[in-house]
Amino acid sequence: MDDSLIGLVVLNLTESVTYDAYRALVDRYGSVRKALAAPESDLASVPGIGRAAAKKLRSLASGDEAVEEIEQARDIGIRIVTCEDADYTHNLRFIDDRPILLYVKGEVTEADAQAISIVGSRRCTIYGKQQAGRFAGELAAMGFTIISGLARGIDREAHTAALDAGGRTIAVLGSGFCRIYPKEHQKLADRIAERGAVISEFPLDTAPNAWNFPRRNRIISGLALGVVIVEAARRSGALITAGTAARQGKEVFAVPGRVTDRQSMGALRLVRDGAKLACCPADVIEEFPQVAQALQVLHPERVRKAALPELTEPEERLWSLLGAEPKHVDEIIEASGMTAAQVLSTLLVLEVKHAVRQHPGKLFCRTDELSGR
Amino acid sequence: MDDSLIGLVVLNLTESVTYDAYRALVDRYGSVRKALAAPESDLASVPGIGRAAAKKLRSLASGDEAVEEIEQARDIGIRIVTCEDADYTHNLRFIDDRPILLYVKGEVTEADAQAISIVGSRRCTIYGKQQAGRFAGELAAMGFTIISGLARGIDREAHTAALDAGGRTIAVLGSGFCRIYPKEHQKLADRIAERGAVISEFPLDTAPNAWNFPRRNRIISGLALGVVIVEAARRSGALITAGTAARQGKEVFAVPGRVTDRQSMGALRLVRDGAKLACCPADVIEEFPQVAQALQVLHPERVRKAALPELTEPEERLWSLLGAEPKHVDEIIEASGMTAAQVLSTLLVLEVKHAVRQHPGKLFCRTDELSGR
Repeated sequence: MDDSLIGLVVLNLTESVTYDAYRALVDRYGSVRKALAAPESDLASVPGIGRAAAKKLRSLASGDEAVEEIEQARDIGIRIVTCEDADYTHNLRFIDDRPILLYVKGEVTEADAQAISIVGSRRCTIYGKQQAGRFAGELAAMGFTIISGLARGIDREAHTAALDAGGRTIAVLGSGFCRIYPKEHQKLADRIAERGAVISEFPLDTAPNAWNFPRRNRIISGLALGVVIVEAARRSGALITAGTAARQGKEVFAVPGRVTDRQSMGALRLVRDGAKLACCPADVIEEFPQVAQALQVLHPERVRKAALPELTEPEERLWSLLGAEPKHVDEIIEASGMTAAQVLSTLLVLEVKHAVRQHPGKLFCRTDELSGR
Repeated sequence: MDDSLIGLVVLNLTESVTYDAYRALVDRYGSVRKALAAPESDLASVPGIGRAAAKKLRSLASGDEAVEEIEQARDIGIRIVTCEDADYTHNLRFIDDRPILLYVKGEVTEADAQAISIVGSRRCTIYGKQQAGRFAGELAAMGFTIISGLARGIDREAHTAALDAGGRTIAVLGSGFCRIYPKEHQKLADRIAERGAVISEFPLDTAPNAWNFPRRNRIISGLALGVVIVEAARRSGALITAGTAARQGKEVFAVPGRVTDRQSMGALRLVRDGAKLACCPADVIEEFPQVAQALQVLHPERVRKAALPELTEPEERLWSLLGAEPKHVDEIIEASGMTAAQVLSTLLVLEVKHAVRQHPGKLFCRTDELSGR
C-alpha cells in the first residue's frame, strides 16, 4: 500500500491537521512518514499543529487505523483522492484550507470545474423548492454541474432537479460515508454517485455533527464558480456558505422573496450586502460569459437580442424614425403618417419599454442602450 | 394683477415651453412680456421654442386666457407658485427641466424637503398594498413627507398610510385640478390638501392624458430625497419614475417580491440594475443619516446596537472568551468550564449568527464587525 497515501490518511483521521499544517510538517521533517516518527512535544511545536493534534498524530502513527480506513473505503467502492494526486478536484486547488483528501464515490470529471452550488434552508417553502428545482434543472441542462449538500429541503431539490434534467451533480457530505445524513437520502446519494459524485473529507465513520457542516460548506463553495442561495432564514447555515464563497472570491447570488417571507430574509440580506440578485438562471450565467460560451449556452448576439424589448409594428415604425438626436413630436407625427393621438400613445409605450427617452420640449430620441439596434 | 405671473402662466398654458426655453426667451427679449410682443417667426427661432410653441405663444399673447386661469385658480382655493417665487418648492430648484410654475392646493412647507416618494403599480397585490402602507406609515411617522401620484393601488396606499400615521403627504397630479384622476380619489385629494399639498404643473382643465404621467413623474422624484418602488410589473410607469430619479441623482429603492410575482418583476429588475434593496423602512433611512438624525429617528448608537445579534447567556460567555486573535477550541473549552459538546454546538450557533468566525485548525475569533462590541 502507498506509504504517502497512508500518511495523508493518518493526518486526515486526526480531523484537525489542515493543509497548511500538513505543508509545515513536510517542511520540518521532509515527509509525513518522518513526521510520524517524531516525538509528541516536537510535533506540537510545528505551526498549526499544537498539543491536541500532536497527541492524536502520535496515537495514529503506526498507520494501522489508516490502513484499515483505506481498505474499508475500497471495499465499499470509495476512492480516496489526496491533494497530491493529479485528479484532485480542480477547483479545490485554489482555495485556502483545502481538504488534505477527499473520499469520492462516483466520478469528478473535468467538466465539473464548471459548477454552480445551490444551497438553502432545510426547512424551505414550496416557492423555495420550485426555485431550487428551476435553477438546478436549467443550469444542469446547460451543462453546469450542480453542487449541494444532500440536506433536506433546498439541497435535495437541487440534486434531484439536476439528475432529472439529465445533468451532473455532486453532493458534499457533512459526515463520513458510513453515516449518510439524513438516512432517508441514502437512495438519492446512490443516484448521485451514478451520475456525478458524492464526496466527503470526513473519515468514513464520522457522525453528522452540527460542527462538521460549516467546515463542509467551504468545499461546497470551493468546488463551484458561484453559489446560489435559494432560501435562507436569518440564521441559516446557507449564509455560512455564502460567507465562505465570498472569502474564496466566488460569485454569490441570492434568489429574492417577499419581505414577509421569513425563509427569504437571509437571502435578501445578502443582496442588500452585495450579493447578486438572481431572478432567473440567466442572471447567473451572465456572470460567467466565457464558461457559458464554452458550454454553448450563451451567444453574445442571443443575449443582446433577448435584452431588446419586443415592439409592435407601429412601435417599430415610430422607433425607426428616431435616432440618438432628440426629434420634436410634431416632426415625428408628420413623418409617421399616424394621427397625433396614435403617435403620442405609442411614444408613451416606447418610453415605458425603455426604447425611447423623452426630453423637455416634447423631444424624443432612442435610448442609449438601444441606439445600436 | 402681477404682470410677471401672467407671463409665466401664458408660457405654461402652451404646455410646451420648458424652463430652459423660458430662460432663453428672457435672454433674448429681456422679459416674458416683451417676448410675447415679438413676431411668431422670431419667437420660433429661440432655442427650445420652435414653430408649434411660437404659434401657441402668439395666440395666448394677449394674456386674457392667463388672467382667466389665474382667477379661476384663486376662486377654487389654488395658489400658483412660479419658479421665480421665494416659496417655489425647494427640492425642485435642483432639477433640470423644473416646472415653470405649480398649482398648489394646501401647503408645501420647509419640512417637505425631507421627503420620500413611494410609487408603484395601479394594479397591485395585497402584499404590495401592505408594504406601501408599511413604508409610508413608518416613514411619515418619523417625519418624512410622503410623495406619490394619487393613482389607484400603491399610490393611494402610500398617501392614506401617511395621513393615518399623522404625517404629511403630497400628491402630484398628471392632470389639471379640475380633472382629478381617478375621480373617486377627489375625497382623498381633499384630505391630502388639508394635511400636506396637492400639486400639478398642468393648467386647470388639462385632461389626465397618458401622455402627462411620464412628465409628472419627474416632479414626484424631483420633490424627494429618494424614491421607493413598491410594486412594478415589467412595463409599469413606476419604472419611469425610477429612471427620472436616477437621472436626478436621487436614491432609488425597490421592495423585493418573489420571482414568481409578476407585479414585482420591475422592482427586482431595478435591484439587479443597481437600485437599493429595501426590506424595511430602516433600509431607506440608513441612506440619509443626516436627515434621519435631524428628524431624531436615527441615533448612531441605536443603529449599532440593532446590528448586533442577540446572544444567549452561554453564547455571550463563550463570546467574551474570544478576541480578534484566533484561539484554539481546546483552550476555549478549558476556559469556559463547559463540556466540549456544549462549546462546539454553541460556537456553531455563534458562527451562524456571524458573531464568531472559524479558522482552519479549529481556531475561533470574533468577527471583525463585532470585535468592538
